[in-house]
Amino acid sequence: MATYLDNNATTPLDPRAREAMLEWLGRRHGNPSSAHRFGQDAREAVEVARAEVATLLGGRPEEVVFMGSGTEANNAVLWSAARRYGFSGHLVISALEHPSIRVVAEDLVELGMELTVLAPSVEGVLDPAAVGAAIRPDTRLVCLMSANNEVGTLQPVAEVATICRRRRVALHCDAAQAAGKVPTSVETLEADTVTLAAHKFHGPLGAAALWIGSDTEFRAHILGGGQERRRRASTENVAALVGFGEIAMWAGRELEERQEHLRSLRDRFEQSLGQIDDVRIHCQGSPRLPHTSHVAFMGVEGEALTIRLDLAGFAVSTGSACASGAVEPSPALLALGLSPEEALASVRISFGMANTLDEVEPFVAALSQEVGALRRLAPSLET
Amino acid sequence: MATYLDNNATTPLDPRAREAMLEWLGRRHGNPSSAHRFGQDAREAVEVARAEVATLLGGRPEEVVFMGSGTEANNAVLWSAARRYGFSGHLVISALEHPSIRVVAEDLVELGMELTVLAPSVEGVLDPAAVGAAIRPDTRLVCLMSANNEVGTLQPVAEVATICRRRRVALHCDAAQAAGKVPTSVETLEADTVTLAAHKFHGPLGAAALWIGSDTEFRAHILGGGQERRRRASTENVAALVGFGEIAMWAGRELEERQEHLRSLRDRFEQSLGQIDDVRIHCQGSPRLPHTSHVAFMGVEGEALTIRLDLAGFAVSTGSACASGAVEPSPALLALGLSPEEALASVRISFGMANTLDEVEPFVAALSQEVGALRRLAPSLET
Repeated sequence: MATYLDNNATTPLDPRAREAMLEWLGRRHGNPSSAHRFGQDAREAVEVARAEVATLLGGRPEEVVFMGSGTEANNAVLWSAARRYGFSGHLVISALEHPSIRVVAEDLVELGMELTVLAPSVEGVLDPAAVGAAIRPDTRLVCLMSANNEVGTLQPVAEVATICRRRRVALHCDAAQAAGKVPTSVETLEADTVTLAAHKFHGPLGAAALWIGSDTEFRAHILGGGQERRRRASTENVAALVGFGEIAMWAGRELEERQEHLRSLRDRFEQSLGQIDDVRIHCQGSPRLPHTSHVAFMGVEGEALTIRLDLAGFAVSTGSACASGAVEPSPALLALGLSPEEALASVRISFGMANTLDEVEPFVAALSQEVGALRRLAPSLET
Repeated sequence: MATYLDNNATTPLDPRAREAMLEWLGRRHGNPSSAHRFGQDAREAVEVARAEVATLLGGRPEEVVFMGSGTEANNAVLWSAARRYGFSGHLVISALEHPSIRVVAEDLVELGMELTVLAPSVEGVLDPAAVGAAIRPDTRLVCLMSANNEVGTLQPVAEVATICRRRRVALHCDAAQAAGKVPTSVETLEADTVTLAAHKFHGPLGAAALWIGSDTEFRAHILGGGQERRRRASTENVAALVGFGEIAMWAGRELEERQEHLRSLRDRFEQSLGQIDDVRIHCQGSPRLPHTSHVAFMGVEGEALTIRLDLAGFAVSTGSACASGAVEPSPALLALGLSPEEALASVRISFGMANTLDEVEPFVAALSQEVGALRRLAPSLET
């Protein structure tokens, strides 16, 4: 049985979420828009889930708009701003954003908007003052994720929110990697919109939410039905949303244990890395997610290392799964000031609630062996 | 146990689809974009599903783009056309289209496009010549569903396709209500894009496909990831897609039995309606889906009738679930030439594979009783 250490790509489904979903995968069914009891039971199940997700975020149920993916939620926020202002004006995003922010923002430039991309410090954290300096009178939206999906650094969302509020600019926060793993309260973040995705914290795929503050105007990206108070048309994916609600409830109740467990795995792993020479743990001194390590093994190709580790029974990643297949280092890593060589020598290890401390030592042993093997194969790279 | 007769809203999940999904709801997991074995196994499962959906449609796997809902697929087609032509030019849609076509087309008018909405005949079928007459040199897209979701009439998609091809205009066909229930081959339809949704034929919610012909240009509506060959970003909903593939396989194999079973239910029901006075079965003489009856009980409010039937243990609908809550009759029904009174006196009965012939007689008995009760309560309406 292989060991899964790529929980930032997706997480195994929690058995409690699975159990909740099964009820709506055969035993019951219904379209929540239907007026009859089948429909109304489905509606009720979706509304229970909505309340649970709202509780996790510290928001109100009517502020939670269910969507199919975090990517869809991020797309929708940018499009809403673009439509509201007729594709005119200025967007500010951090260079750390997920492609579902960055690529959409670039697409909106094609339609007439302007874009400023702000690089973080070498510690992987955006300077709030940079946002203040970038905001213009015609700035429509600022996007800052709460935690980076590759290196795991936490971002100063609340500080940026203060600046945005003062300048009357909307702030969107992609919390897909943070929610369910570190405290993610809309009251603390103070953003106008927040994205989260169930499958990043042991909920199902196909279930995500966009939290939209009550005083935030929003235009739907997917139209043609009254669902989600006209903020997202489509028949609701009842089973997935029920699983999302269930895991949101447990994540909220267990947040402290979750953080402790994840941090203990990550810390033991990073301590054990001392066994291997020429290792750099990126942004280790910065506020970080408890479960993500991004590590450069100098002189080694990260891609080759992940393949060897996979064969040895350990699943890790060279970075964002969304960008897999790419030979280029991710823009976010380069924005951190990593050289292309260092970025390409890096591997992301992300722990999940299903991992155990027992798995760390065999993993580090395999890592040590494979890094050594690769360095022997290509000693010239080891400069 | 209540009898479910609203299968056009959503269908109960086939146990075989459920079984296939369970494998990916706990036993296995993975992000199909991940390079390691967890990811590659998930990728393989998604590609098997893609091939099965392609087979159901008579298309090629690489032409199948998985999406989260039929609504999303319909939105995406219109947006692709709009983006390709810079929001300029002309759209032609039938008045029978689902709101996920109609409302998006109206939204594109706001962005500068022009729209022609073509009324069907009183038999509920669009005249292909009307499409020919509506097409202009700047027409970008024609939308014609293969079967209407409310009255169930089949539309002359292939004839319209011939006209569109001659005039070099793209044709989109929303086959969400037809696929898996009547033959739905992309070769026969000859449209450029085709929408289908798993939950309309006993597959799961959250899984849909847009078939895009190999020579059709397409611009993604949801961006920010390389998934679906850059035609739809988002981590694939592996379990739902696996269930979609499974049900697509069975629907293809069992299509004849399915049609026969559904038709036998519908025909027995419509024959039994003779017991009730002043009943009109809409578009009964037109080519129709085998499982949908749309019936006016003159002098009765459809809404009140569905509520009484629900209490009596029978789930039917006043029309499209997506428009539920609306007090207005649907634009599609009015386009058929129904008076508002007749439209509001109508109820949709839609059978599914889980229904049995034994259910028809008790249902018609309840219908007769409730129609009678409502007519006695409001005899003045019975004109």
